[in-house]
Amino acid sequence: MNLEHLRVDIGRLMDRIDDLAELGAIGGNGVCRLALTPEDKAGRDRVLDWMRALGLSIRIDGMGNVVGVRPGRTPGPPVMTGSHIDTVRTGGRYDGNLGVLAGLEVIQVLDEAGIETEHPLAVAFFTNEEGARFAPDMMGSLVFVGGMDLDVAHEVVGIDGRRVGECLTEIGYLGEAACGQYPVRCFVELHVEQGPVLEAESITIGAVERVQGISWSEYTIRGFSNHAGTTPMRLRKDAGYAAAAVACEVRRLAARMGGDQVGTVGALNLKPNLVNVVPNEAVLTVDFRNTDEALLRAAEAQLSAFLDTLSAQEGVEISSRRLARFEPVPFHETVIAGVERTARDLGYSVRRMPSGAGHDAQMLARICPAGMIFVPSAGGISHNVKEYTSPDDIEAGANVLLHMLTELAEA
Amino acid sequence: MNLEHLRVDIGRLMDRIDDLAELGAIGGNGVCRLALTPEDKAGRDRVLDWMRALGLSIRIDGMGNVVGVRPGRTPGPPVMTGSHIDTVRTGGRYDGNLGVLAGLEVIQVLDEAGIETEHPLAVAFFTNEEGARFAPDMMGSLVFVGGMDLDVAHEVVGIDGRRVGECLTEIGYLGEAACGQYPVRCFVELHVEQGPVLEAESITIGAVERVQGISWSEYTIRGFSNHAGTTPMRLRKDAGYAAAAVACEVRRLAARMGGDQVGTVGALNLKPNLVNVVPNEAVLTVDFRNTDEALLRAAEAQLSAFLDTLSAQEGVEISSRRLARFEPVPFHETVIAGVERTARDLGYSVRRMPSGAGHDAQMLARICPAGMIFVPSAGGISHNVKEYTSPDDIEAGANVLLHMLTELAEA
Repeated sequence: MNLEHLRVDIGRLMDRIDDLAELGAIGGNGVCRLALTPEDKAGRDRVLDWMRALGLSIRIDGMGNVVGVRPGRTPGPPVMTGSHIDTVRTGGRYDGNLGVLAGLEVIQVLDEAGIETEHPLAVAFFTNEEGARFAPDMMGSLVFVGGMDLDVAHEVVGIDGRRVGECLTEIGYLGEAACGQYPVRCFVELHVEQGPVLEAESITIGAVERVQGISWSEYTIRGFSNHAGTTPMRLRKDAGYAAAAVACEVRRLAARMGGDQVGTVGALNLKPNLVNVVPNEAVLTVDFRNTDEALLRAAEAQLSAFLDTLSAQEGVEISSRRLARFEPVPFHETVIAGVERTARDLGYSVRRMPSGAGHDAQMLARICPAGMIFVPSAGGISHNVKEYTSPDDIEAGANVLLHMLTELAEA
Repeated sequence: MNLEHLRVDIGRLMDRIDDLAELGAIGGNGVCRLALTPEDKAGRDRVLDWMRALGLSIRIDGMGNVVGVRPGRTPGPPVMTGSHIDTVRTGGRYDGNLGVLAGLEVIQVLDEAGIETEHPLAVAFFTNEEGARFAPDMMGSLVFVGGMDLDVAHEVVGIDGRRVGECLTEIGYLGEAACGQYPVRCFVELHVEQGPVLEAESITIGAVERVQGISWSEYTIRGFSNHAGTTPMRLRKDAGYAAAAVACEVRRLAARMGGDQVGTVGALNLKPNLVNVVPNEAVLTVDFRNTDEALLRAAEAQLSAFLDTLSAQEGVEISSRRLARFEPVPFHETVIAGVERTARDLGYSVRRMPSGAGHDAQMLARICPAGMIFVPSAGGISHNVKEYTSPDDIEAGANVLLHMLTELAEA
């Protein structure tokens, strides 16, 4: 059978994207579907309905990861695609969702064309990729590949004091399938770039070579509360000032290191958080990323040295907790080259590039050849309600995914 | 009648302090009695019970300020003492409360000694002195002296979104007496120092000469939310970083100006406040104080110039809102000298000093001769559950108050 002219139905795919975006919709076309919330449950239920309508056999594991499988001519590990459907608190409708729904579109195109593949095909969505409610991010796919014990994951406490395990039970997604044992033939994930590179260079497809390493830490700074009017500056142990000094140092550090190094203080909370009281406690997060593990370690070491000095100077105690730590992950050359070739065959411009964000594919890379397809993000904007990728670019990405999966399932 | 040997009953005064501290008690001997909360209502009810038991005639105005009056031989404006009973969120049991309860103790001593004074005596407590829930601080006494319209005060929205007026109604303290018209003969407030000076110099009584000027501003910084991994540092509009830069500048500015200048960023809130999202909004407060109005203005101007530069460099919008602004207030020489002389007559060590904190007495200074008596704060600690003043020092301060009020009410 000649598969060259197979194409996705972009109208149908966009309808599903818009449909899913209504669950947890927030102003400005955004989505708030934090992991394991009622909104997440609603989104999961919707995707499961679609999976069932496509006749996929559903597997839900103890982490709430969902895999829908389309049988091949011969049994065995499936060629898998997928991503996640959880979002950050003020997120867009493409991040994660696109990869899952494009997977369903691929299945439907093959079904309608009456095409059976040699190996099974699977579409998955993984729990809590964002890490916006529970740390670390990519938790579901990490547990899926056996990189974190299920019991440990279940005990993780979220920003609202709730535990992963109880929330899974509450929304009815504590499945019975085992974690860490599911064999996968290979994994390809379609995702929006979430950065400005493809758009700036007018390129449609990114063949992702590797993912930046990620270092997330939470620092708790303990000083001493006192009256803001009567306490001389020299006698203060101001946890709020110390936290601000850390945030300024993170910025200076990234500027000093240059290259791929980024650093962000995204969360910061003071106690008692009152205008006229010197704060006695500050809790803040630091997010460092670099494509080079040695440089990422250097950033961590430099911040650590700064904290020691700051602690002594201000008379505050600083304790740290690692929220997440992933080394940079290289993808499989076969998949990278396959994305490049497929894009060119379909007439799309393509370039190799790193990923600035973490993705489920980097976890799957631990157990099988894995790779990613990027499509442009308007203005490089993501984790924001203004996140946008044009239907033309989505169509291109989904077509590359369609041909990659079909080819890999025949190989 | 010879009044020389009159003394307060320190046991009775300490009992009242401990009793009041049970209402809104928090761990570590602290108190959380934010203005116009159910805890504040409970505290008010208790003090009113005591006032009624002492036979005082009660006056509650539209701001919830309470004045209890003991008649003199001749009618006319009373010699007044008092303070406040609201606290910060993690406050102590002496700040404000001492001044009110020592006032009641003075009344009881005079009653038991059968002493009538020429002029009436009054004990007052003023609403929302702390400003920890509603800005500005000293709101009740400001409205009491006619410095702020009652209607404006009623519309002030607190940190929890509630309005002053509705909260006054809710706790049953929206009184009928008019604001801004009550004549006062003179005002003396006993208060803990809330700073380290008296303790460091082993002096028992502070004769307060003036109060620092206070400048409170709230800044809202608007940047742009984006993915913390994929957004190059140079393309960020990071409201969180900008807020941290302001907090660091406030510290540098106070160090640069030296002298009495203090500066504090006590409250800081980020949105969306997530580890992996560049914050798009930060709201922070700046508290500047100085005993010299020209220097206080210089601090404000320097910060304003810094904000202009920061806004341009980071590409963020910064808007400001004044929460409170009070010029330094000198107290009346007659009262200052009276505190000094009375303390010496009673055998207590005394020094003149400024107040680093704002107090109700500075508002009363707008309508009558006013002054303050300070007693030592252990470790200079206040606005903290560890706030402590020894019973001996409290007794000394209350005795100075007793003799000051008696003398002024006879003069």
